[in-house]
Amino acid sequence: MYSYRELASKFNGYFAQHMPFPAQPAGLYDPCSQFLADGGKRIRPVLCLMGNELFGELTTDAWHAASAVELFHNFTLIHDDIMDRAPLRRGRPTVHAAHGLTAGILCGDVMNIHAYMELAKIGRSLPAILDIFNRTAAEVCEGQQLDMDFELRNDVSMQEYINMIALKTSVLLACSLQIGALTGGSVGDNASRLYAFGKNMGIAFQLKDDYLDAFGDPEATGKQNGGDIKANKKTFLLIKALENAPDHQKADIMRLATGDSEQKVTEMLDVFQATGAAKACLDTI
Amino acid sequence: MYSYRELASKFNGYFAQHMPFPAQPAGLYDPCSQFLADGGKRIRPVLCLMGNELFGELTTDAWHAASAVELFHNFTLIHDDIMDRAPLRRGRPTVHAAHGLTAGILCGDVMNIHAYMELAKIGRSLPAILDIFNRTAAEVCEGQQLDMDFELRNDVSMQEYINMIALKTSVLLACSLQIGALTGGSVGDNASRLYAFGKNMGIAFQLKDDYLDAFGDPEATGKQNGGDIKANKKTFLLIKALENAPDHQKADIMRLATGDSEQKVTEMLDVFQATGAAKACLDTI
Repeated sequence: MYSYRELASKFNGYFAQHMPFPAQPAGLYDPCSQFLADGGKRIRPVLCLMGNELFGELTTDAWHAASAVELFHNFTLIHDDIMDRAPLRRGRPTVHAAHGLTAGILCGDVMNIHAYMELAKIGRSLPAILDIFNRTAAEVCEGQQLDMDFELRNDVSMQEYINMIALKTSVLLACSLQIGALTGGSVGDNASRLYAFGKNMGIAFQLKDDYLDAFGDPEATGKQNGGDIKANKKTFLLIKALENAPDHQKADIMRLATGDSEQKVTEMLDVFQATGAAKACLDTI
Repeated sequence: MYSYRELASKFNGYFAQHMPFPAQPAGLYDPCSQFLADGGKRIRPVLCLMGNELFGELTTDAWHAASAVELFHNFTLIHDDIMDRAPLRRGRPTVHAAHGLTAGILCGDVMNIHAYMELAKIGRSLPAILDIFNRTAAEVCEGQQLDMDFELRNDVSMQEYINMIALKTSVLLACSLQIGALTGGSVGDNASRLYAFGKNMGIAFQLKDDYLDAFGDPEATGKQNGGDIKANKKTFLLIKALENAPDHQKADIMRLATGDSEQKVTEMLDVFQATGAAKACLDTI
């Protein structure tokens, strides 16, 4: 079995060789190629390949499945960037920022279709893999919708939050492992157990992301602490702090969280510690 | 075999019964349900069902395929309306106009995924049907990109125009017939011949649309003549008029076409007749 680093490197090689979009229309396919070449950590395709390797030698089907989940993931990033009005991704202009709204919408659409083109090349267990992929894809859209909905609400419960991050982030990680396992010849309920493992890992991954945004070492994370706090984002830490705080402090915390004060980050970090939210986050991970 | 009207009515019944999106998140699925319920002529699903009926009794697979092409078509309408900044569709506000850009993008995305959910239910010839559908879906995106590109160009050739309308409109009609035939048990090259027939019919359909926009009976079409002329759209008529006109008149025609004069519509209609573009359009249809 290969290490994460080896699989990511192998996948990048495979992807660069097998993922040439057609040359024309260039306005559609050039931004797609550029966006994919800009990289990312390739977590999902690597999980897919690892899922295969748990049950046998890497199969051709696994490479198609890995390409499909990576294409789907990048499609969602391109559309999410439009919805989030994000100017940058991986240090470069987002598709819509560089090429306009039309290109952003259409490049995402065609990248999603190319994900299905990869899936269609799978031989073994195609109907089962297609079902898992479709359900997951719809759930990712639902997670994005909930994330948008939650921006307008101040009463998001912990259960709602965990459900949202599970849909938005974890189910695609879980799906990657599961369909990878199926391409490797997994039988019985092994593949669905891997799905459950991947989903929980994905939730932990997102919570760690919440934690590091607040308390990470800036040297290691490469960004200043408190980005989520400044952006008024509902995270595990804020929701747990509100849950744990005595009633008479809840309004103060919410005022601080939605306000724009100079000391907001420092004060919120204190709140996260004092209410036990920081510890609860680590415990939950 | 059923008539068009009967199949459209049967499809509406089937679709209303089998197409309940999940209830939640309502912000995602309610606009989808509303948009689909607003109707349309159901041309693509009817072609799909007719394709089946040429080879045998209507199959369960045909209903899934018909639902898939209708869902895909509606997904493209929702996204095209964003790109075209269209406020109305079928006499009602477009999804993005009524619910915002985020809803427009996300509803389209999830509707496309639901198209694939329907495809995944197909038993017979699934891999072949998936291949045809995927290639068609990518071509529809390419056609939309070319349509956008052509808005910025004044040198679009007839060949380029026909290719664009074929991709944007015809290939999905052709695909509907072909995959319908496959669900009905078509063997040999019958299904691909139906594809070719559907593609040519689709091109004729679009050219008739161009013609009726200029010369149709307003009583019958329900709209004033010259909508395309007012919107400076490149149509068969304009491209052919420029092709046919003597060199010294081409600049005048282009000036008229891209201008904004009071008599623009009347004068352009005269040009379409005088240059033989109107007759050429009917001949080509």
